[in-house]
Amino acid sequence: MARSVITIKKDILAKNDELADENRNRLKEAGILAMNLVSSPGAGKTSLLVKTLNDIGNKARFAVIEGDQETDNDAKKIEATGVPVTQINTISACHLDAAMMKKALDTLNLDSIDTLFIENVGNLVCPASYDLGEKIKVALMSVTEGEDKPLKYPKMFRVSSALIITKTDLLPYVDFDIAKATDYALKINPKLKVFKVSAKSGDGLLELYDFILSGANDLL
Amino acid sequence: MARSVITIKKDILAKNDELADENRNRLKEAGILAMNLVSSPGAGKTSLLVKTLNDIGNKARFAVIEGDQETDNDAKKIEATGVPVTQINTISACHLDAAMMKKALDTLNLDSIDTLFIENVGNLVCPASYDLGEKIKVALMSVTEGEDKPLKYPKMFRVSSALIITKTDLLPYVDFDIAKATDYALKINPKLKVFKVSAKSGDGLLELYDFILSGANDLL
Repeated sequence: MARSVITIKKDILAKNDELADENRNRLKEAGILAMNLVSSPGAGKTSLLVKTLNDIGNKARFAVIEGDQETDNDAKKIEATGVPVTQINTISACHLDAAMMKKALDTLNLDSIDTLFIENVGNLVCPASYDLGEKIKVALMSVTEGEDKPLKYPKMFRVSSALIITKTDLLPYVDFDIAKATDYALKINPKLKVFKVSAKSGDGLLELYDFILSGANDLL
Repeated sequence: MARSVITIKKDILAKNDELADENRNRLKEAGILAMNLVSSPGAGKTSLLVKTLNDIGNKARFAVIEGDQETDNDAKKIEATGVPVTQINTISACHLDAAMMKKALDTLNLDSIDTLFIENVGNLVCPASYDLGEKIKVALMSVTEGEDKPLKYPKMFRVSSALIITKTDLLPYVDFDIAKATDYALKINPKLKVFKVSAKSGDGLLELYDFILSGANDLL
């Protein structure tokens, strides 16, 4: 039994990778940089996106794909910034996959997008295994989580190209050693580009915006 | 393809439920109350456990099963309280299952335990589908997460018997409407027993300790 499951799982992942490659080609042809934002629930993906789009939404043509098990709460928040958004409700699924991404791409006018943010389902485990066709995965981790998250959930940090440590405005009130967190993350993946930001106070955002607007050139 | 997967998944869940029932019987015979703690990574499960065991560890015979993808960091923290602990590393798996739980039970002296805490892998989605044989699931949610988590990830709140809203010491520094969060959770599951605590300041812990030491009688 266990063996059949593993086989099926490999088939699912192989099929997913094929579809992801199709998505990637489609995005490349349209000249779109796609970033897949992954994190625990509550790490601040939506708040950071809203802040980013309000601040630099006029400096490039952005679009957003929102993934949640249920509700369109996040899509509504993005919509209020004036940026095109498509919500995917995964219902029971614990991650987005390339087939969902393909359907979402069909709803967007790809010729009028420079940068596409995909906000994955809040889950520090499962989305690490599913390529959507994005250029890079960007992991978020808030200072209210333990600093050893990269060690305890290493795969997500291994497959990501950048790490955004969020909610730095809360540092005075929590026991979180940001240097240690950064060390742990770089131990898992020395190539990670690390940002430290607060969507509330604005700290660290200019560096992140440069990274986004330069098309994440450092990494590409 | 999709259909076979669903069939296999049902088989996995059916097999899991069988093993979970065996675990449940074993726990019942030993007179152990088992609580399965589920939440996002970083909601504060380990900190709350450590605080609880330090405060009331001498008032009942406790034991802990720790689930993480990798590392035994959390087991070490529990061990320091003097309470028996078994670490399960799930490696790629995004949740504990009944087979892992069975193996963990084999490592513990069940005759000398009154209350068993199982700290599941940090994941607000997948552990909701896996019965381990516990008496109740207890969901945790920190005030640094958005208050609409129960609406966006409803299954976890539906299958839990209690909800612990954690890190209330941070309320002055975050935009979190605790009344709204409670309302959303109760909308998903009106039977949820809700606690509001801070492991740091100690707020709300006495009520939680009563609940734990009374064998969660209200719910059983």
